[in-house]
Amino acid sequence: MEFSAKQIAEFLKGTVIGNPEVLVTSLSKIEEGQPGTLSFLSNPKYTHYIYTTQASVVLVNKDFEPEKELQTTIIKVEDAYQSLALLLNMVEQSKPKKRGIDPLAFISPSATIGENVYIAPFVFIGENAVVGDNTQIYPHTFIGDNVKIGQNTKLYAGIKVYENCAIGNNCILHAGVVIGSDGFGFAPESDGSYKKIPQIGNVIVEDEVEIGANSTIDCATMGSSILHKGVKIDNLVHLAHNVEVGNNTAMAAQCGVSGSTKIGKNCVFAGQVGLSGHITIADGTIIGAQSGVASSVKKPNEIFLGSPIMPVARTRKVYAVTRSLPEMHATIIELQKEIKNLKETIKNL
Amino acid sequence: MEFSAKQIAEFLKGTVIGNPEVLVTSLSKIEEGQPGTLSFLSNPKYTHYIYTTQASVVLVNKDFEPEKELQTTIIKVEDAYQSLALLLNMVEQSKPKKRGIDPLAFISPSATIGENVYIAPFVFIGENAVVGDNTQIYPHTFIGDNVKIGQNTKLYAGIKVYENCAIGNNCILHAGVVIGSDGFGFAPESDGSYKKIPQIGNVIVEDEVEIGANSTIDCATMGSSILHKGVKIDNLVHLAHNVEVGNNTAMAAQCGVSGSTKIGKNCVFAGQVGLSGHITIADGTIIGAQSGVASSVKKPNEIFLGSPIMPVARTRKVYAVTRSLPEMHATIIELQKEIKNLKETIKNL
Amino acid sequence: MEFSAKQIAEFLKGTVIGNPEVLVTSLSKIEEGQPGTLSFLSNPKYTHYIYTTQASVVLVNKDFEPEKELQTTIIKVEDAYQSLALLLNMVEQSKPKKRGIDPLAFISPSATIGENVYIAPFVFIGENAVVGDNTQIYPHTFIGDNVKIGQNTKLYAGIKVYENCAIGNNCILHAGVVIGSDGFGFAPESDGSYKKIPQIGNVIVEDEVEIGANSTIDCATMGSSILHKGVKIDNLVHLAHNVEVGNNTAMAAQCGVSGSTKIGKNCVFAGQVGLSGHITIADGTIIGAQSGVASSVKKPNEIFLGSPIMPVARTRKVYAVTRSLPEMHATIIELQKEIKNLKETIKNL
Repeated sequence: MEFSAKQIAEFLKGTVIGNPEVLVTSLSKIEEGQPGTLSFLSNPKYTHYIYTTQASVVLVNKDFEPEKELQTTIIKVEDAYQSLALLLNMVEQSKPKKRGIDPLAFISPSATIGENVYIAPFVFIGENAVVGDNTQIYPHTFIGDNVKIGQNTKLYAGIKVYENCAIGNNCILHAGVVIGSDGFGFAPESDGSYKKIPQIGNVIVEDEVEIGANSTIDCATMGSSILHKGVKIDNLVHLAHNVEVGNNTAMAAQCGVSGSTKIGKNCVFAGQVGLSGHITIADGTIIGAQSGVASSVKKPNEIFLGSPIMPVARTRKVYAVTRSLPEMHATIIELQKEIKNLKETIKNL
Repeated sequence: MEFSAKQIAEFLKGTVIGNPEVLVTSLSKIEEGQPGTLSFLSNPKYTHYIYTTQASVVLVNKDFEPEKELQTTIIKVEDAYQSLALLLNMVEQSKPKKRGIDPLAFISPSATIGENVYIAPFVFIGENAVVGDNTQIYPHTFIGDNVKIGQNTKLYAGIKVYENCAIGNNCILHAGVVIGSDGFGFAPESDGSYKKIPQIGNVIVEDEVEIGANSTIDCATMGSSILHKGVKIDNLVHLAHNVEVGNNTAMAAQCGVSGSTKIGKNCVFAGQVGLSGHITIADGTIIGAQSGVASSVKKPNEIFLGSPIMPVARTRKVYAVTRSLPEMHATIIELQKEIKNLKETIKNL
Repeated sequence: MEFSAKQIAEFLKGTVIGNPEVLVTSLSKIEEGQPGTLSFLSNPKYTHYIYTTQASVVLVNKDFEPEKELQTTIIKVEDAYQSLALLLNMVEQSKPKKRGIDPLAFISPSATIGENVYIAPFVFIGENAVVGDNTQIYPHTFIGDNVKIGQNTKLYAGIKVYENCAIGNNCILHAGVVIGSDGFGFAPESDGSYKKIPQIGNVIVEDEVEIGANSTIDCATMGSSILHKGVKIDNLVHLAHNVEVGNNTAMAAQCGVSGSTKIGKNCVFAGQVGLSGHITIADGTIIGAQSGVASSVKKPNEIFLGSPIMPVARTRKVYAVTRSLPEMHATIIELQKEIKNLKETIKNL
């Protein structure tokens, strides 16, 4: 594939500044740009690279005004990151798609398999399972009994979906994801040992959900753990039994959510955040990295940080003071001395 | 299956208050209860649901006294959670159990396989491995050479057990668990590179142990990493080489324990706790979520919280003061001014 | 295998103190030493065990001087830990190596397989993939299309390598590792949903890299996520898209690195450390456990601790003061009272 700056600008409804005839054949990051590649500038941290990049073409936001002379051709677009996404989608969709049912797959006779699917060697599909049209299942993926998987869904290699779980349409699950493992439920016995509470519920993953590599979503004790439409989960995330995650909530890597916690819509959690069990988080809540959330968040659209969390502005002030605690401690000792001296002085007046 | 409130009360040795003839066919959570289901009330946070639940029957602790009129029939039992566990076990045990050795499994000729086992398609069992009676091994699970697995143990899909490890009776290992991977041991060389220390030990998992999805237990450098009888490990937990975990200790998701640390019996760690290497933790120690443990805990049955940990009561006080550090900082500046003023005043007396 | 203390001392260029004829057949930890085993003393925490160990021979550093009488024979060597490593390597290399291509593996006809490899049952090797000489691939490992794997590399069970990734020579990847899963990249839409940014880059793992069980390394959005030569990664670590890790950097379990962050050479991160995206970390940086790194570290060879990080000496002081914050709070209230009293006193003078 080879495109001119002009062709790309037309596709993206953008404006070329520079040479409209320059040709590109692939995409690159701005700091690694090579001649013949197209790059983009979205994060302001990277602005300085635009004056030195070797990329032939760079997508920029329409309000970008160069402060020095540019060697590269730029295309001004409404939103450089979204335009890049369009181009990446074009590249992605030009790749051949895997299709066909491999004879080395194991498919239970009672399973129902849709049209135009990919079922790789060493896939296991259990009894009464249903796989929708155009769905792709990569090697070593395990689909338990009675599992339902929608259409146009992609299950990468080595995923394990326990029995009775349901996965929607247009989902992407990455390698090693576990769906429906038992919740961590035990009743303590008088001798200090634990009696297992059987976990007879399931997991429901609605449409348009993406789940990152090696994340684990436990089934409900009873009922369902639910990831609503549009949820995006990164790698190595743990969602415990009976957790519910609202529409379009995004959770970065290594977050952990304890049992029965209900998370609202359109929340964003940064990496390594932990939530206690049996709490609710309001819609639109944003939580900074490594935060710990021990109680419910009731007001929507607030931003929190810290372990335990506080409103982010307070946490930043607390961090600033914390950093100078040794000096504060010294000041207090100094103040104690001064007061002692003052008392002496007054006594001797 | 259909049971009356009266039949269930007899089975659980409880007392019906309401309609003893009402019938239930399945279980539900109290906040999602539907007619024809049985629910339970154990966590006081959920008490208000009992006045609105649609569940036909609710198990309650015997000391529960309703404050308003109930629409539902209740059964008073000694412990509602344990009674629920009994019913869940009944449901669980009514499920058909998978049995038989699938011809698509790979079993080394030198392996020894017990009676009445389930060995699924695409299971790999190495040389001289032993699998006990009634044990179930799900698809894509790897059993290395010389591994010993006891009786009535359940290994879900995609588990990997490295050579020479041993797993006891009545254990449950969830999908994606890794047992016996190399410990993280390297000797630094003078040029800044690392020389690998071969890890020639194994992992011993004793009876009645449960390990959550995608958790990893490293083998010992020499000797054994050991999970003693009754240990319960949640998802995505990391136990390093030569770690030892005492009887009936429970560890929630995403905990990490560094090398050679010895954890006592009956400890409880909440989620995302981290422990340094080469320390010992006394029996009955309880550690709150996201805590960091850098040195040994010698006195048993204490509760800790924080990173680094402190006794929980102190940590709670520290958190309370931390939250108001910006105000404390302002107060100190104010005090400095006041003292300066006082000094001036005295000088001018 | 049976060796005398004298033979081992000759092999390690060490000096025997005690009985040079005593025989050992295996290795043990000093606290678990049994007659007929050889142990070692390196960590000073364990020194007291040398007076009670049952091990027949103990390797010690050459500057070790016993303070009491020893029951065991010791061998003084330059560095006891490195000498142990030599012996462990000897044991490791005496184990038979798995070789051969199992007929139950799936190998695409277009793949290129080197000499003297091990390809286990249920391995999947995709189109145009390349596997170098002497490389070992354990069961249930998935090698995507166009993946290149070098020589003498060991891929344990259940690893998933996405298409187009490259793994070098002499690498060890542990069970469940995922290489090349999609980075977590989404563009927010005006309705609150997310549009996926296709991730078309790959992962490059250079020579001599070791990656622990169930760790996940995302592919780059464009270009490559790179682990340079000699990098050592522990279990359950997450490296996001476009991360780069410099030569011989070591990262303990459950660390997480956000997108586009560049880590220098010879860094050491303890467990559960988290790094923000788009930052750079200087060579030789050491970061303590559970730390959070929100901005770039520019000066090399510094040691940090805390969330957010500070230089370790400051963090230790801050921790010490933090612990006594409740008392400091009380002191300040006391000071306020005293000043109020002083003011009264002065007013009444």
